[in-house]
Amino acid sequence: MERVLSSELSSHAGERIMMAGWMHRIRRLGSGMVFVHLRDRSGICQIVVEAPEAVASIDGLLVESVIQVEGTVVAEPQAAGGYEVHDPSFTVLSPVTEALPFPINKPVINAHLDTFLDNAMVGLRAPSKQAIFKLSAAVAHGFREVLDGKGFTEVATPKIIGSASESGANVFAIEYFGKQAYLAQSPQFYKQMMVGVFERVYEVAPVFRAEPHQTIRHLNEYVSMDAEMGFIKDHTTVMALLTDVIRGILSYLTTHSARELELLKVEMPLAPESFPHVYFPDAQQWIFEHHGEDCRGEPDLAPQHEKWLGEWAKETFQSDFLFVTGYPMVKRPFYTAPNPDDPKYSNSFDLLFRGTELVTGGQRLNKFEDYARALESRGMTQEAVAGYLETFRFGMPPHGGFAIGLERFIMQLTGLTNLREAVLFPRDMERLQP
Amino acid sequence: MERVLSSELSSHAGERIMMAGWMHRIRRLGSGMVFVHLRDRSGICQIVVEAPEAVASIDGLLVESVIQVEGTVVAEPQAAGGYEVHDPSFTVLSPVTEALPFPINKPVINAHLDTFLDNAMVGLRAPSKQAIFKLSAAVAHGFREVLDGKGFTEVATPKIIGSASESGANVFAIEYFGKQAYLAQSPQFYKQMMVGVFERVYEVAPVFRAEPHQTIRHLNEYVSMDAEMGFIKDHTTVMALLTDVIRGILSYLTTHSARELELLKVEMPLAPESFPHVYFPDAQQWIFEHHGEDCRGEPDLAPQHEKWLGEWAKETFQSDFLFVTGYPMVKRPFYTAPNPDDPKYSNSFDLLFRGTELVTGGQRLNKFEDYARALESRGMTQEAVAGYLETFRFGMPPHGGFAIGLERFIMQLTGLTNLREAVLFPRDMERLQP
Repeated sequence: MERVLSSELSSHAGERIMMAGWMHRIRRLGSGMVFVHLRDRSGICQIVVEAPEAVASIDGLLVESVIQVEGTVVAEPQAAGGYEVHDPSFTVLSPVTEALPFPINKPVINAHLDTFLDNAMVGLRAPSKQAIFKLSAAVAHGFREVLDGKGFTEVATPKIIGSASESGANVFAIEYFGKQAYLAQSPQFYKQMMVGVFERVYEVAPVFRAEPHQTIRHLNEYVSMDAEMGFIKDHTTVMALLTDVIRGILSYLTTHSARELELLKVEMPLAPESFPHVYFPDAQQWIFEHHGEDCRGEPDLAPQHEKWLGEWAKETFQSDFLFVTGYPMVKRPFYTAPNPDDPKYSNSFDLLFRGTELVTGGQRLNKFEDYARALESRGMTQEAVAGYLETFRFGMPPHGGFAIGLERFIMQLTGLTNLREAVLFPRDMERLQP
Repeated sequence: MERVLSSELSSHAGERIMMAGWMHRIRRLGSGMVFVHLRDRSGICQIVVEAPEAVASIDGLLVESVIQVEGTVVAEPQAAGGYEVHDPSFTVLSPVTEALPFPINKPVINAHLDTFLDNAMVGLRAPSKQAIFKLSAAVAHGFREVLDGKGFTEVATPKIIGSASESGANVFAIEYFGKQAYLAQSPQFYKQMMVGVFERVYEVAPVFRAEPHQTIRHLNEYVSMDAEMGFIKDHTTVMALLTDVIRGILSYLTTHSARELELLKVEMPLAPESFPHVYFPDAQQWIFEHHGEDCRGEPDLAPQHEKWLGEWAKETFQSDFLFVTGYPMVKRPFYTAPNPDDPKYSNSFDLLFRGTELVTGGQRLNKFEDYARALESRGMTQEAVAGYLETFRFGMPPHGGFAIGLERFIMQLTGLTNLREAVLFPRDMERLQP
């Protein structure tokens, strides 16, 4: 007998069917009757167990036992999907006889974050947790779909790298057959090199940051959605692309993730056709004038500043997204293109989402001489980045790109309070298990 | 003016257009006339340069210079796409004045593999090289598309892991904030745990193997396309899934990658609706009878054995794919489910593609007691795999899965002689750059 999913009951009214899944909830009544909620990959449905031999066959089983059921589909307006299963007979595929570390069949999981993460392999089975990661998969799908439609090529760049080039202090070291190697903190160099090959590339892959931070918004391994494109005018071309990507992802979610968005009560972000943008020094001037804090001349924005700017964008432009452009060159990496009219500032940007940095991007240098000068002025050697530099001897167009932190997108979208909740098995300074 | 791609010329006949790209080939005639092949992400087209000032404006430029061109589209039956560009005026975006390490505008790249890999950032620009990686991206897309259509959820599992659990000897060690961590050699444990959450999961991500092998078919970092599903009958359910995946990928390539398949002269594999399969000891018996080599009782097949079996499958079943099932338990990892009727052999399989192992898969154990027994019989401790083991206390259905090596698929499909040619920036014992 073909297995029927809980979401498919309505097409089988009156039929005898076979189902399989986890005993999500078991309610044993004094009368001997048992109500079982069966969870499968499509959702949850109710099984009404009345016959004594059927009741006996699941006697003693605890929640999360895996069962196979044959039963009759019956319309029941009171039931969640309008249908439930009667007259079941059970086959127990995998009995559970121990209590879960915490219940996973409540709307809210009542476990300390550490306890939850220690037991993620079962905790993630909770429908609200599943939904977060379904949404996360959909965001990656949306990202790829938008870029595929614009002629981008997906690439796979190496995660083991030979030199800790981008910023030596923050990479993990690996023992590599007696040599020292490192984990890539971003595909930055490789995606730029690939602009020379495919013009437009993207990658969705893990990145590794050895920064010893212990905050609710940082992790040491996360998924970066990177894009890079050639033949741009300047960073504004990249911003236009990013706007399309963000709007495309949101539209993908609306179409493909309605169930998860509803379950997680996601308030869909305001994302106008064109996102508002503010030039870095103007943002500082605005903060000074409207919040009395004088951060003018500082090289970066503090989280509180981003929050104020986010509120301003929402009120003034009805947008949950705001570009801050022109970050000072001194705070940007050596490959950043300066603003030709104001070279203390860069042709780069951050995209704030609900007042928090979500994306960093910008235009890159594209000529060998400019790289040589930039490295020299920062006291860096060409040797450290030799392979990458070679690319620019052989014809590179004006190009730029960005990187979106997938988990941070999910965190901001769904209103999670800790980035760890947006990762299946997070890695921080203390956590390497499970 | 909007940029027009070289593949779009036919829609602009007679128009003045703007193009941009790389000077792929430059032929300067004695008459002063110059023929430029312009390469962009869509292909290559020819620009005919006659006017002396236009000729002068590209004087001295070497191939790979990046240019922008305005010109008139003219029908020319002799030209590659039936159209070429006349009366050009050029803007040089990024001049090249050095010779390439080797020419990249020939049908065959004439460079030693090491030289090629040292200069991959330019070598990969060659159309035949581009095509390999376009195909590679399409294989990953096809893989995801098939599984998305079957209710699979994409997951991102950690690459930094806390214990070298799966097979201690072959993992890279990382310094992790004063602790020892490792690079994941596969997402095996995590994808199994995720069967408890989503029933059906897949991941396309890098894996890391610290094996000190120096062969044409092994690398220390590669992309693994992993899938795992619950509620299977046994390994045959997984084999049926894998057959659909392989056929789905091939069909995806036929639809989306016609240009690359043609350029690389790919002979599409024979992939019947159902792939032939042979039981491990029967394969050994067949080898003994037909090739006179007595490998009966050996725990594994040698490459030559696989080759013979591949030839047999092709001749007898018109299939480039062959399942070998029932590998001896002694050669399979502890989580492998035994064949209940013949417990020395396993419910696992390899899929040979043109006589070479492409995929390994099978049914896994799904009950805690069976894991406990399997670990004990192999002299392994439960502590080493504690987090993973917990999963099986809390209800896991019969499940199984497989892992396809993306680069190996491309190597076998396109007839490459070295796996390194199927990776943008390969990592082997000697190579960490670029």
